[in-house]
Amino acid sequence: MSGRLSVIGCGPAGEHWLSPETAQLIARATDAVGYGPYVRRIARPGMRLHISDNREELMRAVLALELAAQGREVVIVSGGDPGIFAMAAAVCECLSEADQPRWDNVELGIYPGISALQAAAAKIGAPLGHDFCAISLSDVLKPWSLVCRRLRCAAQGDFAMAFYNPRSRHRPWQLGAALDILREEQPPQTPVVFARAIGREDEALHYTTLAEADPEWVDMRTLVIVGNSQARYFDHGQRRWMYSPRSYPVIES
Amino acid sequence: MSGRLSVIGCGPAGEHWLSPETAQLIARATDAVGYGPYVRRIARPGMRLHISDNREELMRAVLALELAAQGREVVIVSGGDPGIFAMAAAVCECLSEADQPRWDNVELGIYPGISALQAAAAKIGAPLGHDFCAISLSDVLKPWSLVCRRLRCAAQGDFAMAFYNPRSRHRPWQLGAALDILREEQPPQTPVVFARAIGREDEALHYTTLAEADPEWVDMRTLVIVGNSQARYFDHGQRRWMYSPRSYPVIES
Repeated sequence: MSGRLSVIGCGPAGEHWLSPETAQLIARATDAVGYGPYVRRIARPGMRLHISDNREELMRAVLALELAAQGREVVIVSGGDPGIFAMAAAVCECLSEADQPRWDNVELGIYPGISALQAAAAKIGAPLGHDFCAISLSDVLKPWSLVCRRLRCAAQGDFAMAFYNPRSRHRPWQLGAALDILREEQPPQTPVVFARAIGREDEALHYTTLAEADPEWVDMRTLVIVGNSQARYFDHGQRRWMYSPRSYPVIES
Repeated sequence: MSGRLSVIGCGPAGEHWLSPETAQLIARATDAVGYGPYVRRIARPGMRLHISDNREELMRAVLALELAAQGREVVIVSGGDPGIFAMAAAVCECLSEADQPRWDNVELGIYPGISALQAAAAKIGAPLGHDFCAISLSDVLKPWSLVCRRLRCAAQGDFAMAFYNPRSRHRPWQLGAALDILREEQPPQTPVVFARAIGREDEALHYTTLAEADPEWVDMRTLVIVGNSQARYFDHGQRRWMYSPRSYPVIES
């Protein structure tokens, strides 16, 4: 007898971004697996909670698959979208790499959610309204040389960018180094926005430019958004907004 | 007396991806502005519908701002997320470029939604689980040379990619040209998935590789997903999945 594993995302904050599809999966789940803050956000009476540390993604995926193989109705929960720097990749990796026949009959579903990237962009205006890249600045699972190569390629392609995992206690210097790479390729007045804790009570936006961006403002709950060469700020309703125009000059520099 | 303009997205299909926040904005709207199929999806009794052609984005934004300036409670609706290749950029462009003091008191809000990119990725597995780019292959608003440059940069950075607007009756050759650029930079076995009409009754996935990808399969309701060099297919539950592994080899080629 095999159960089901639903890979879900609860959005960056609150319940107002939780899709009805995901809410329904939560309502019928017997077990929830994930990092503590996300599991606690979706906890319901009678649900078994399986809380793990933030870094143990593969262990968490194995646990979720084991529970589902035992016939449980399991959700494995990420903040944001499970498909963007979150648990969907870890679950796929387990199923692809491990040879565990008892997982064969687990019914797998992956369900989209609203990501931090989107919540931050909406609050800012439309910084990712056209071609953009999402890059994690963490060098825990990939070499820093690859992060650098991607940053340079993204800048040379004049993409708007969103940086996940820009800075933490254990990775204090990477954001500064990333900005230095962009400074070699992009104009100093390129808009940069630090979006912290979007959707939460202590939500904050910090508007700056590539020349002046100061990594000290950024913490692990911050998403960094960098405009492309056409991006610009404007004022409306007593606040600032930033967007990437829909059209691009035909004559390239 | 000024009203409110809410820039919303109704997700790629159905009501199961509509966030509670957006549902609430729809419930209290007096007017809905947008492309016909999206407006009809959110129509409610008593709501005035303002339907425009797909290409008239700026005209549509102006109309929505005018209605809001008259005190109406307006939603301007995109499919997917309004911030990703959709109406948020056009609304910001209007407010930034036009000097219309009567819009000054319009209360503006932009609200995230689930994009086609995310719905397709979830159905496929975790193809965008790490660093990725989203690129529109349309050369209506930007020069084709820029599309080519971005494709080459994205490939050289070994990003996973999602292509919006890959092919239409008026743009029949661009996807083939785009794939040819990638073939110069990436291995022939790179996974490519064509995701058509995700979330709808005629939803279909077509799994192929960079070497074998045939643009003929693709229409304007298709999103194209290209893996990075580490992406791979696996089988589970009598179907195919594709993902980008969480980690990257330390020794680069």
